[in-house]
Amino acid sequence: MTLGVPTRPLVFAEIIAVGSELLVPPRLDTNSLFITVVLNRLGIEVRAKSVVADRREDVAAVLRGALERVDLVVMCGGLGPTDDDLTRDAVASLLGLPMAEDQAVLDRLVTRFASRGRVMPEVNRRQALVPAGAEVLPNPNGTAPGLWIEREGRIVILLPGPPSELEPMFGRVAAERIAPRAGGRKLCRKVLSLCGRTESEFEQIVFPTYGRWLGEALPIATTILTAAAQIELHLSVHAETESIGMARLDEAAAQVAAVVGDDLFSVDGWPIERVVGEALRRRGWRIAVAESCTGGLISSRLTDVAGSSDYVLANAVCYSNGSKTSWLGVPAALIEERGAVSEDVAEAMAQGVVQKAGAEVGVGVTGIAGPSGGSEHKPVGTVVIAAVSPEARIVRTFRFPGDRIRVKQFAGQMALDMVRRLVTGAKPGEAFVARERVGAVR
Amino acid sequence: MTLGVPTRPLVFAEIIAVGSELLVPPRLDTNSLFITVVLNRLGIEVRAKSVVADRREDVAAVLRGALERVDLVVMCGGLGPTDDDLTRDAVASLLGLPMAEDQAVLDRLVTRFASRGRVMPEVNRRQALVPAGAEVLPNPNGTAPGLWIEREGRIVILLPGPPSELEPMFGRVAAERIAPRAGGRKLCRKVLSLCGRTESEFEQIVFPTYGRWLGEALPIATTILTAAAQIELHLSVHAETESIGMARLDEAAAQVAAVVGDDLFSVDGWPIERVVGEALRRRGWRIAVAESCTGGLISSRLTDVAGSSDYVLANAVCYSNGSKTSWLGVPAALIEERGAVSEDVAEAMAQGVVQKAGAEVGVGVTGIAGPSGGSEHKPVGTVVIAAVSPEARIVRTFRFPGDRIRVKQFAGQMALDMVRRLVTGAKPGEAFVARERVGAVR
Repeated sequence: MTLGVPTRPLVFAEIIAVGSELLVPPRLDTNSLFITVVLNRLGIEVRAKSVVADRREDVAAVLRGALERVDLVVMCGGLGPTDDDLTRDAVASLLGLPMAEDQAVLDRLVTRFASRGRVMPEVNRRQALVPAGAEVLPNPNGTAPGLWIEREGRIVILLPGPPSELEPMFGRVAAERIAPRAGGRKLCRKVLSLCGRTESEFEQIVFPTYGRWLGEALPIATTILTAAAQIELHLSVHAETESIGMARLDEAAAQVAAVVGDDLFSVDGWPIERVVGEALRRRGWRIAVAESCTGGLISSRLTDVAGSSDYVLANAVCYSNGSKTSWLGVPAALIEERGAVSEDVAEAMAQGVVQKAGAEVGVGVTGIAGPSGGSEHKPVGTVVIAAVSPEARIVRTFRFPGDRIRVKQFAGQMALDMVRRLVTGAKPGEAFVARERVGAVR
Repeated sequence: MTLGVPTRPLVFAEIIAVGSELLVPPRLDTNSLFITVVLNRLGIEVRAKSVVADRREDVAAVLRGALERVDLVVMCGGLGPTDDDLTRDAVASLLGLPMAEDQAVLDRLVTRFASRGRVMPEVNRRQALVPAGAEVLPNPNGTAPGLWIEREGRIVILLPGPPSELEPMFGRVAAERIAPRAGGRKLCRKVLSLCGRTESEFEQIVFPTYGRWLGEALPIATTILTAAAQIELHLSVHAETESIGMARLDEAAAQVAAVVGDDLFSVDGWPIERVVGEALRRRGWRIAVAESCTGGLISSRLTDVAGSSDYVLANAVCYSNGSKTSWLGVPAALIEERGAVSEDVAEAMAQGVVQKAGAEVGVGVTGIAGPSGGSEHKPVGTVVIAAVSPEARIVRTFRFPGDRIRVKQFAGQMALDMVRRLVTGAKPGEAFVARERVGAVR
């Protein structure tokens, strides 16, 4: 195969990952995410991506197909020293390019091994083979050099598979060699994060808004991603310049904010624990958490944020009833009378931990994560969350779907959202609230 | 294109996911993992998989390429009612099959909408179009029916994209239609989980073992996956029967156990918190955890395990120095003299939480997760972990690599591993131990 066609601006690309191990679950090709983000930012759209086993003929066939559709193909993996590493061979033979040992590459390999006190194994000599006319992309982080092969306007880039080697190499090649030739419109993105309703409720509320966008000038594509009570709207738009694109997305975000109100907690892709942290910092308040069924998840998420030691004092995970009493001062009689999973106990946990830690904001969470422990009135998934501040308190009983881990995730997300609303003065969310309180289980 | 070639056993397959939204990060095609596991179990190997944008000509071209290599192509997505949903059209036109409305499918669609009190929108009529000769795969969980298209031994299966619709449909079609014709050897898998050394140390120790496997009869393929101090060896082997394959993998696992000893903590894919839970249960011991830099992560992982309320009593997250003293009884003078991040304080935290909770096993973790707070002697990543039981105690100072989240993950994993060793009487692991104790930072 020869690469014909004169030079033209790069608009479309495909990505090919080579490696049988990438076809064995649970492995996934994630290099393509990095490559896609870099290309999209330059205005190049990825039209297809593939993962191919280590078979010479398959690698060549998939590359041939890609070159029939696009002018830029980024390949990763299969550049190592062993027999399985056949990307170089497959590409060179498809394009009819003879391979020759490159003295400079060989020297670098020998030096690299020597600097670690080792003699280069003979098998690594293969990594110095370079197809005629290809340019070598140096690899400061590993043995496999990358390759840039260009023939009459079509480009094939070969990158090593390990992300620590691929990412800096591709970043450099994108900035230096691809950017000047990229001809497409810029792809701009924005992530809107919502909490407080179920996915289908949000869809019903927001669809009339985002459904219109596709039909408008500068159409916006929308993808909804859900992770246990957090809903993300991923918006993307192609525009001539980044500022036109971002202005369009800002306008779209404002339209969503107008219909969902306080349920929108971030337009920057921030996790809710970071939003909570900023809100606490603005008020000068510190927080303490008392967890039962979430088992430390809320505490761990709060402390994932750099600088959280400024506002997180101390948290208690009280799994046993005895520890709810001895650690948090929840009266044993209250637990006996109302049950460990009750609004009174959740609030007593929140008040108890606030006092004990000397914090301003307190959270108490108690519930039944399952799989056992449920009853008719309090089935698995029942979780009570209380949040208290010097100004107000919110107590809610929820019924979350899913298994133990999902219930923990839902409860953690909703507890953090309750704190956010409490600290910022936003209206409480109503999703998943149990029937006995608001008349609907969702 | 026509599907020629007489019927033969199915050995190889390819998977094609259709949808522009799957090419926009952070989205990944994960349906292919499910499909691969099902096919592998039947003895069918996946040779390549692709994700293609919603472009008729690209979908057709990628399918044409796949059918040149394999006899079975599984496609997913693009069966909905809108203009973007062009998988049916692209496949039918590539194969030269005229489409016609299927009355039974149409009736089911109308009934499905009616049962929800709605009239079927006209746009959904498209979903009743069936290529000539195709068989309809009913979809009890959504509107889009699947399709089975077979011509002279080659098969194309079209599945809807949502996992809740795809998985039951593909499970059924695999059992009923693919299994009787699968001709390959069974792919058997086993996951060995290791903790206690770095990835490169494990590679050095285990490579002489797994490096041999590929050259032996019934070669075993090995993939190493690493997640913050947990190393997984994923072994897979093709064998005539499942029992031959599993026997081969059991033998391989025994060889690994012989070289890594107590560092092997599971051959069943169990997470370490479940292994710890079982070990505690066997001893009849209960646990309490005092966390500083891990912020509740260890507690949350321990309570991810169903039934953990049997042995988890109460845990404390003491971020501030004051709470280490007032909650856990760590003397303020000790913190002052040795520093909050010191072996004495970690051990006092472990002893304090054990007493306070009335548990048998205690863990204390204190460290510098970063990004700030490090010093020359105690740089970011320094973490001290103490584990105590009625029989013994282990205290270790580690230096972990990476950012805040990674340091938390490393510390959590190593703390759970220390508890496992303490409770089962295994030899302590030595990875990441800081220079001042064992003479090597890794």
